[in-house]
Amino acid sequence: MIIVLKPDAPQEFIDKLTVSIKSKGLQIDISKGARKTVLGLVGDTSVIDRDQIQGSDYVDKVIRVEEPYKRVSRAFHPEDTVVSVNGIPIGGKKLAVIAGPCSIETPDQIEGVARDVKAAGATMLRGGAFKPRTSPYSFQGLRDQGLDMLCEAGKKAHLPVVTEIMSADKIDLFLHDHVDIIQIGARNMQNFDLLKAVGKTRKPILLKRGLCATIEEWLMSAEYIMAGGNHNVILCERGIRTFENYTRNTLDLSAILAVKHKSHLPVVVDPSHATGKRWMVEALSKAAIAAGADGVMVEVHNDPEHAWCDGAQSITPKMFAGLMDSLRQIAPVVGREL
Amino acid sequence: MIIVLKPDAPQEFIDKLTVSIKSKGLQIDISKGARKTVLGLVGDTSVIDRDQIQGSDYVDKVIRVEEPYKRVSRAFHPEDTVVSVNGIPIGGKKLAVIAGPCSIETPDQIEGVARDVKAAGATMLRGGAFKPRTSPYSFQGLRDQGLDMLCEAGKKAHLPVVTEIMSADKIDLFLHDHVDIIQIGARNMQNFDLLKAVGKTRKPILLKRGLCATIEEWLMSAEYIMAGGNHNVILCERGIRTFENYTRNTLDLSAILAVKHKSHLPVVVDPSHATGKRWMVEALSKAAIAAGADGVMVEVHNDPEHAWCDGAQSITPKMFAGLMDSLRQIAPVVGREL
Amino acid sequence: MIIVLKPDAPQEFIDKLTVSIKSKGLQIDISKGARKTVLGLVGDTSVIDRDQIQGSDYVDKVIRVEEPYKRVSRAFHPEDTVVSVNGIPIGGKKLAVIAGPCSIETPDQIEGVARDVKAAGATMLRGGAFKPRTSPYSFQGLRDQGLDMLCEAGKKAHLPVVTEIMSADKIDLFLHDHVDIIQIGARNMQNFDLLKAVGKTRKPILLKRGLCATIEEWLMSAEYIMAGGNHNVILCERGIRTFENYTRNTLDLSAILAVKHKSHLPVVVDPSHATGKRWMVEALSKAAIAAGADGVMVEVHNDPEHAWCDGAQSITPKMFAGLMDSLRQIAPVVGREL
Amino acid sequence: MIIVLKPDAPQEFIDKLTVSIKSKGLQIDISKGARKTVLGLVGDTSVIDRDQIQGSDYVDKVIRVEEPYKRVSRAFHPEDTVVSVNGIPIGGKKLAVIAGPCSIETPDQIEGVARDVKAAGATMLRGGAFKPRTSPYSFQGLRDQGLDMLCEAGKKAHLPVVTEIMSADKIDLFLHDHVDIIQIGARNMQNFDLLKAVGKTRKPILLKRGLCATIEEWLMSAEYIMAGGNHNVILCERGIRTFENYTRNTLDLSAILAVKHKSHLPVVVDPSHATGKRWMVEALSKAAIAAGADGVMVEVHNDPEHAWCDGAQSITPKMFAGLMDSLRQIAPVVGREL
Repeated sequence: MIIVLKPDAPQEFIDKLTVSIKSKGLQIDISKGARKTVLGLVGDTSVIDRDQIQGSDYVDKVIRVEEPYKRVSRAFHPEDTVVSVNGIPIGGKKLAVIAGPCSIETPDQIEGVARDVKAAGATMLRGGAFKPRTSPYSFQGLRDQGLDMLCEAGKKAHLPVVTEIMSADKIDLFLHDHVDIIQIGARNMQNFDLLKAVGKTRKPILLKRGLCATIEEWLMSAEYIMAGGNHNVILCERGIRTFENYTRNTLDLSAILAVKHKSHLPVVVDPSHATGKRWMVEALSKAAIAAGADGVMVEVHNDPEHAWCDGAQSITPKMFAGLMDSLRQIAPVVGREL
Repeated sequence: MIIVLKPDAPQEFIDKLTVSIKSKGLQIDISKGARKTVLGLVGDTSVIDRDQIQGSDYVDKVIRVEEPYKRVSRAFHPEDTVVSVNGIPIGGKKLAVIAGPCSIETPDQIEGVARDVKAAGATMLRGGAFKPRTSPYSFQGLRDQGLDMLCEAGKKAHLPVVTEIMSADKIDLFLHDHVDIIQIGARNMQNFDLLKAVGKTRKPILLKRGLCATIEEWLMSAEYIMAGGNHNVILCERGIRTFENYTRNTLDLSAILAVKHKSHLPVVVDPSHATGKRWMVEALSKAAIAAGADGVMVEVHNDPEHAWCDGAQSITPKMFAGLMDSLRQIAPVVGREL
Repeated sequence: MIIVLKPDAPQEFIDKLTVSIKSKGLQIDISKGARKTVLGLVGDTSVIDRDQIQGSDYVDKVIRVEEPYKRVSRAFHPEDTVVSVNGIPIGGKKLAVIAGPCSIETPDQIEGVARDVKAAGATMLRGGAFKPRTSPYSFQGLRDQGLDMLCEAGKKAHLPVVTEIMSADKIDLFLHDHVDIIQIGARNMQNFDLLKAVGKTRKPILLKRGLCATIEEWLMSAEYIMAGGNHNVILCERGIRTFENYTRNTLDLSAILAVKHKSHLPVVVDPSHATGKRWMVEALSKAAIAAGADGVMVEVHNDPEHAWCDGAQSITPKMFAGLMDSLRQIAPVVGREL
Repeated sequence: MIIVLKPDAPQEFIDKLTVSIKSKGLQIDISKGARKTVLGLVGDTSVIDRDQIQGSDYVDKVIRVEEPYKRVSRAFHPEDTVVSVNGIPIGGKKLAVIAGPCSIETPDQIEGVARDVKAAGATMLRGGAFKPRTSPYSFQGLRDQGLDMLCEAGKKAHLPVVTEIMSADKIDLFLHDHVDIIQIGARNMQNFDLLKAVGKTRKPILLKRGLCATIEEWLMSAEYIMAGGNHNVILCERGIRTFENYTRNTLDLSAILAVKHKSHLPVVVDPSHATGKRWMVEALSKAAIAAGADGVMVEVHNDPEHAWCDGAQSITPKMFAGLMDSLRQIAPVVGREL
């Protein structure tokens, strides 16, 4: 940690600060410039409260040199993490392809989609039972009933299932119903109480990046889950909010590289939510794999024009089969298999 | 609602769509341009699922003409809403000034700050017991114990208290402890389950704008609360995330005008979180009142350099007294009083 | 064009507006809703001044149905445009790979890089002679002298050259020196006088996307050039400014799809400026090609650690050769060749 | 300047870097942490090329401690600068109010507006002769002819005139026609050749903030002008581009405080372009003055509904007179006069 002092910081203040920091077991290297004095803190700076130091009128800025996360960091866990989902790996050589409808609508619908995506080569089934909707008047998901349908469809198609949780009081239901991956949605990425709650389970957690979350904030949210003891975290890039609104969000593929550089956790990409446009899904899925993602998650609906939500971004099972063919060609080029 | 069709939309599709829309009791005006056909829907379009129509490959875009909210809208409630907090109004002629520390630390601290801000003219006391922190290793607030200290301090100083809730399972505690205004923080603005839960109470709710929430999304979150029957909603602008990072966030004062134009709800401004800089708080508080805000919420700490969090943006009780003097001068210029 | 009127628009105003629009040869379809009236304009709306109508207090919003550009639009030119650069195509089946240093430094440096990238398979040479630098105290490029060095190096290596123009008064020099592609940089994307000036030449123009330009604004800038009669426009996505600053900018690969959907112009991607990080260049080049780009433009320097500018994002000739190998593998998967 | 090295930086590299830096007359303080080594550079770091050092694979980050600008900095010029425009000050106790139409249309129009705003108390007249328009098909301004009309109107009304320049080749005309303040528009804020050109004159320059310019970039553009010897720079905040599009841009009033903290230059605010909404102009003008701006620049048109551009954001002379009344009330509250 580096503390840059303002030109007018009196010696008395510097002395007091130095004593206080040293009392916490750290060393300080002082570098006096023409106008500003710089303190370099050596040792375990996690005992230092950055906010408190930043609060002083004599402090210009406090710069962290070490990352604020630990369990998430590649420095502390150099090898790639592979999360096992009922024996199916996410991370590593084999790509994960998670497919399914935005919303679970009927047993027939979800079981039909499950069969189709399984046949085309999907490795997992997604489907929303609890839906975060901007409007209180929009369809909110079939909830508990939808969860049952999804788990049943997964069982029949021999596909692990992924679905979103919106509230900690549903964790028992998710565990009881044998949800294989619990998804934390973009809007709940900093719902810290929910992160703590799923951190106490040992279920794989798919953590979507928040709409305006920095890479660091996203990793800190993963740290919340891991701090609870649950190391089965899968990151999911799904686009960030920018000034451009031709696409629903702006897919940030450099984020794949950033998180793989800083962290050992696997990362998948959701081009459906990122773009909101069905015709962009295939090309951006290929791009995601080319950039190094560990998999993709795409919305597939048997009848997108009558989907109960997000129809505009859902592809048909036929389009999905075409997408799988493309991915099978691109995978070996980047040292992956499907 | 307006539906713009793509140039290649076949007549058969247009006919089917028309029949389907008319079957829901709406009228359609068709306008055929050189390349694109436009359908104007007349009637109660809330029965139409925009997503579903958008999902068709023949549809170019769907444009809403009416606002997606009702209870929040000024169209349905032309007069300004004044929320009564234990008899003290927010909205209307009298300005609200909510002051207090980021975190409640000790009974002495919160009671001392309460006395000081009351003496200077604050109308309400704020203080955090449950703290949403980016890092799991940062101080998370004194929680239940902190809540007790805050309510006790409010009672002693005769100030209503405002504090943040992070999880629906604490609502009973908040009600039992006589919290006067329940705050929904920026990071939970789209925690829809929490919004529904506070919507079932009749407590005043202070709804902060999310870091990257549009005006419309913010109002839709207010609509969630009001849809539950709780009409006591106070909006709070606290800065949005932009590319500029000299300030912690970018305070958007035009948002005051926007929400007052579209909605009847009162709106206060939090310059402390918006800027993260103590020396900006007074000038931007004045600007907020000049722009038409119904009040401000500012962080005040008796010893900011030793605050347990957010010290850099907290002002001292003495600075707060100076701020109150400024606001007392500016209030009458914009037809308000303090 | 659709005009949505406010609920309080008087009939008199509607009548006057209708007469005024009809006098310009358009038809109007009127659709009266419960609260708002919607006018659908049919005909050549380019004669209508949107700003003027928007200026009325009775007008809620004016929505364009047709695109604001013509020559750029795929609707008016359905086939992909292939720009010929001294016989070498940009657009079409063959991928373009433009490589070279940020700044031209010495004849040895630029000729050395030219030889190396040519040997590895680059199709064009880039190099900056006139450098847009944030600081007036930073190296501003070798200017006229640099331009000579670049053109000489291109000639020797049999590579067409691409370089940036910053001011219209240099156009004669660029033409005289046989620059093959004139680049308009991100910061000048809306320097309309410069766009008009290069629009009068018939040289290929590489138009970079502005740091905060929407897809539509970018295409409108291309329209400026084409309106002057110069149809040889190549678009270049180079990252947009967002809240995320781990990377220098955020590369927006969905923009490739968007411009190819709306326009017939070729588009290349510059991952070097987008990320500012050398180790991200290869993976994102692959992703760009996978997403459908017509080529990439990358910074290559023989000695990046001593580059006069942008060293952090330049790759070595050896890394470039590796990148070419990767692209050669990925090209056929997406129906391209290299 | 602080250089943070990566954990794997070999001693040999550190030694070489140290020697190279010391050879430029600087001292180095080395602070070795558990994983990372930090170098603190003491002395005139302007001789160090940050880019070059950042280019090394062993360097984690380079952090500037001193600001990158000099002439612009308050550190080098502690007192507020007051720019004199034909004897009328911008900066200091007296507020500047610049008013006039977006575009000059006819002599009658500009002279009429000039008379009206002069009567209401405006201190300067604005009007566009050269208009930067997104579309090549939109009205581009009356150009040279419009400039004559503006200057004539200013002379008759005894008001200094402000107008935008788009290309360096017009500087002679601007000087010859006695334009009093040359405006650099937002889209040209980083047109460095134009900045250098106006830096060679001694005319007051109104430098608008770019749509996505950081505070630092904006000040660096001012430094470009001042580096040429022209110290008469006035900054103008006019809103930045964000995800929110209810307003045309997002007015950033904290920028006033930021530039006044870092720089000695005066700053005015343009709420018309920031919001694009006439009904927001008065409230945000008051807010700007309350926040500490040295003045405002507003669009006034005698007949906004028929304005040739930007009608939606222009206020009438009558509304302008009301705005002046408001500002006269608010000015003394913040120690200003009008």
